[in-house]
Amino acid sequence: MRPESTAADGRAARLAELIGPEDLDILFVSDLVNVRYLTGFTGTNGVCLVGERERIFFTDFRYVERAEREVGPGWERPEAERELVPQIAAAMHGRVGFEDAKLSVRRRNELGEAVPDGVELVPAGDLVEQLRAVKGEDELKRIGAAAELADEVYRWSLERGLAGRAELEVARAAQARIRELGAEPSFPPIVAAGANGALPHAEPEEREIGSGELVVFDMGTELDGYCSDCTRTYATGEPGEEGREVYELVREAQAAALGAVRAGISGRDADAVARRAISEAGRGEQFGHGLGHGVGLEVHEGPRLATTSKDVLREGNVVTVEPGVYVPGRLGVRIEDLVVVTADGHRNLSRLPKELALVD
Amino acid sequence: MRPESTAADGRAARLAELIGPEDLDILFVSDLVNVRYLTGFTGTNGVCLVGERERIFFTDFRYVERAEREVGPGWERPEAERELVPQIAAAMHGRVGFEDAKLSVRRRNELGEAVPDGVELVPAGDLVEQLRAVKGEDELKRIGAAAELADEVYRWSLERGLAGRAELEVARAAQARIRELGAEPSFPPIVAAGANGALPHAEPEEREIGSGELVVFDMGTELDGYCSDCTRTYATGEPGEEGREVYELVREAQAAALGAVRAGISGRDADAVARRAISEAGRGEQFGHGLGHGVGLEVHEGPRLATTSKDVLREGNVVTVEPGVYVPGRLGVRIEDLVVVTADGHRNLSRLPKELALVD
Repeated sequence: MRPESTAADGRAARLAELIGPEDLDILFVSDLVNVRYLTGFTGTNGVCLVGERERIFFTDFRYVERAEREVGPGWERPEAERELVPQIAAAMHGRVGFEDAKLSVRRRNELGEAVPDGVELVPAGDLVEQLRAVKGEDELKRIGAAAELADEVYRWSLERGLAGRAELEVARAAQARIRELGAEPSFPPIVAAGANGALPHAEPEEREIGSGELVVFDMGTELDGYCSDCTRTYATGEPGEEGREVYELVREAQAAALGAVRAGISGRDADAVARRAISEAGRGEQFGHGLGHGVGLEVHEGPRLATTSKDVLREGNVVTVEPGVYVPGRLGVRIEDLVVVTADGHRNLSRLPKELALVD
Repeated sequence: MRPESTAADGRAARLAELIGPEDLDILFVSDLVNVRYLTGFTGTNGVCLVGERERIFFTDFRYVERAEREVGPGWERPEAERELVPQIAAAMHGRVGFEDAKLSVRRRNELGEAVPDGVELVPAGDLVEQLRAVKGEDELKRIGAAAELADEVYRWSLERGLAGRAELEVARAAQARIRELGAEPSFPPIVAAGANGALPHAEPEEREIGSGELVVFDMGTELDGYCSDCTRTYATGEPGEEGREVYELVREAQAAALGAVRAGISGRDADAVARRAISEAGRGEQFGHGLGHGVGLEVHEGPRLATTSKDVLREGNVVTVEPGVYVPGRLGVRIEDLVVVTADGHRNLSRLPKELALVD
């Protein structure tokens, strides 16, 4: 991702607006994905300080040229020293928030020993993550392109058939195809047939996919820095009564949840819509994960759609809607779309059909 | 990696022996690579507690079946609860060490609030990393196999030629070949020609490799959980006087450093051997990184060979020996072998020749 400098500047400015109300003078951003989001920097060692006036980016000597290329003009880039901590600490003043969910205890303590008198280090939660959860137009385009590419790889995979091939073979071929098309998998694809499909995080195995099995196929791509995430469940021939029943149940629960997604609904309430549908069919215990999660620079980010979520959906969120039912020892079904939350509903980035498809 | 349970048990027992002298009752291991090393578990959420008698592994419901398959019989596996922290905290007693370089401030604090009265949480450094630095026979075999596979991909790459191809094309082809051979790259390969070679962490570019250029080619594989790391510098035809001089200088410095590597030498002294050779030629400033690092489950681990290292090499360490000289705006040369430290020297896992090779 190389955001235009104007976009990056806008992000830092929006972050600075969040800092004041938290009673902070500066935020110390150390999480690499957050640094990338704010500055455009894609190397593996960089941090930044953002305050009302401060836009300071630090990296070590290895990445000076990269930073020159990637980091926008709004950012001050002090000359890199061998030891970054003293340099960063010296630029701090007042109440300095740090990313407590990411910063290690050791780095926090090193920083604490290096800061000038009067600096107070304050755990400051997930401020950049809050910004990241609401996508800009440019980001939506990139996520949309990543989703479209995944759709293409699904179609390509089905043309090659599922039955008679090993799960692992199908997964690897999809992965290779994603790379051929110039992207990366956003996570290792899951291909889980029959009883394997009952494990929500199954790893593809050498086992051959049989006929009349339900095959959970979960795959996403990362293109130009942004991720997609999608799941379809296919049947390799008639899956039987229980298979059909579970499939249609998940499909209806997913449709109901999609119907509920809009700006203003809580992640908890959206989850409850799908959960209610599945529970009413007596299978509540078989839906053992949350309804969905945000997707962007990372394949798992905010907001969460789950029974324990405290998030409220906002316009510009990009979230998965992915109920599943897992019948231990027998079968699993999961159907997942990636959608943009809008003021009055959603825009679906996953274009693959959802009727039960009997494939080879 | 699926270590035999006996191997895994041996590791936990050796760890338990390190805990006593640190005045700890238990070590809380949260770093995933360390958890994998101790227990064999390869999922993305698992922690363990190791004490004189304790061998307890925790994961969430998603990974219960995987844990059953992977985690050795010496480990207690309490039934997974939705919230792991209270469950883990309840199993703690006395002085409990935690991995302060890895554990986030937030997780540390959540744990601190959940532990029973009388439990004291103590930063406990890198105890598992100390164990990991000394490899067992089984690990040496795996690292050797990863190195051999990388050698093969180097030869394969050279057969296809360098001059006239884009750096990025060479790097991507090597990456694809590694995957075809059933491994993964241990990091994205570096192919940096001409002036690009002067950036120690250059990213391959679309730029075409010319004739008479020095090409730094840094590549490693990950096979069966274990990594390799190697660098060779090739010339696409006669590289000129400066190119030859720098190449021979680096080659001699590398040979000298290899001559010094043995159990008992400090990482600092090993580094100094190469650095002295390069400094005496007036190019000390152009060797801007350390001599080497350990390699194992991670491509960068202990011990370090550098001016600031406090490590002493031990029998069974696997380290890179990789001096480089970078002439800004003109050229770079790095030569890197992966070696096993032995009582009286080393065993080299990289078998590629090191004379200057003029390739197409």
